[in-house]
Amino acid sequence: MSDDVSTEIMTATYRALCEHGYAELTMQDIADETDKSKASLHYHYDSKHDLLVAFLDYLFEEFTDRVSDPAGETPAERLDAFVESVLSPPTEDDDERVAFKTAILELKAQAPYDDDIRERLEAFDAFVFERVREYITAGIEAGEFRTVDPADTARFIVTTLDGAQTKQVAVGQDIDCTRRMLRAYVDTHLVSEDCAGENGRLDGPTEVTPE
Amino acid sequence: MSDDVSTEIMTATYRALCEHGYAELTMQDIADETDKSKASLHYHYDSKHDLLVAFLDYLFEEFTDRVSDPAGETPAERLDAFVESVLSPPTEDDDERVAFKTAILELKAQAPYDDDIRERLEAFDAFVFERVREYITAGIEAGEFRTVDPADTARFIVTTLDGAQTKQVAVGQDIDCTRRMLRAYVDTHLVSEDCAGENGRLDGPTEVTPE
Repeated sequence: MSDDVSTEIMTATYRALCEHGYAELTMQDIADETDKSKASLHYHYDSKHDLLVAFLDYLFEEFTDRVSDPAGETPAERLDAFVESVLSPPTEDDDERVAFKTAILELKAQAPYDDDIRERLEAFDAFVFERVREYITAGIEAGEFRTVDPADTARFIVTTLDGAQTKQVAVGQDIDCTRRMLRAYVDTHLVSEDCAGENGRLDGPTEVTPE
Repeated sequence: MSDDVSTEIMTATYRALCEHGYAELTMQDIADETDKSKASLHYHYDSKHDLLVAFLDYLFEEFTDRVSDPAGETPAERLDAFVESVLSPPTEDDDERVAFKTAILELKAQAPYDDDIRERLEAFDAFVFERVREYITAGIEAGEFRTVDPADTARFIVTTLDGAQTKQVAVGQDIDCTRRMLRAYVDTHLVSEDCAGENGRLDGPTEVTPE
């Protein structure tokens, strides 16, 4: 299949998931978002399951491309920009964003019963975890962060990011709230500005020169 | 309907949810877990939706009863015991626990499309949030915790708890890991043992006498 056809089907899957959710989604719904027939979709993908797994692979590539080079000079700035890009999906449309996150939450609930889906979700999790751990390790080495356990701290941040996505779907929790909380967590737990401030050793993280 | 009948139906709903998940669940599945017919279930509840909403009310009552009086003398101990009881559902069976959490995750993905479900999930969220905020406020007043923003800190803890549930279902993240991370967060962010330790002001939270 050409890249164009593949991209067209993936974009159609995205739109169909936003509109119908995962549980109710049919191959026909996806075909309806393209100029192709359901039969021609089945020519490329045996089942809804296979198409969804290909869609998760496509999402993973799109996601890792989008968030791989966060802006910022210092590890703290890059960690902040990375978290920001994970929290903000590429659409500005609020309804579409929640609809898509809802479909992803449905997919997460499939993981215990579907090894292919579980495997893809684990790849997302491992990618985000490794990146956060790298920035924390780099920040400690640069003297910008305190000597915390990078793995435990990364795991905590990644768990909170997941909680923020779930809370947004389940109870409409504002993503700005999570953003603020995570900044406060990084400032207190990693940069430890307030501890340092109390002792007059530092005015803030901008005073720290990495290297 | 008598309390006995109601409890029997609720227990059957719990078992059926663990076995079939939410999306696939039918009234017949629930009836199969009782000695009643599907018709007699419909006599008490018009639809699967109504039964599920009643089940969430039942869960809420059971949950609030179970976690309402956490052990411990100090606010820090009570916060720790409360978090522990939220993380540990009342069953020891690992498979059943994950199956039930998976069904709950499916229900969370229904919230954007179902106001009755959304309302119940908001009640859970508000309950846990208020409790955590109370313990933090009490800890600050007792001089046991630093002067953090109780609402922001509670929101952070509650979001992480939700993330831990989602991660357990989606990628099999161990709940012990979350337990350890939250203890470290409370110690650093609230009790601030390591900040205090550095300055030799406190040996640890056990040295702090509340009141």
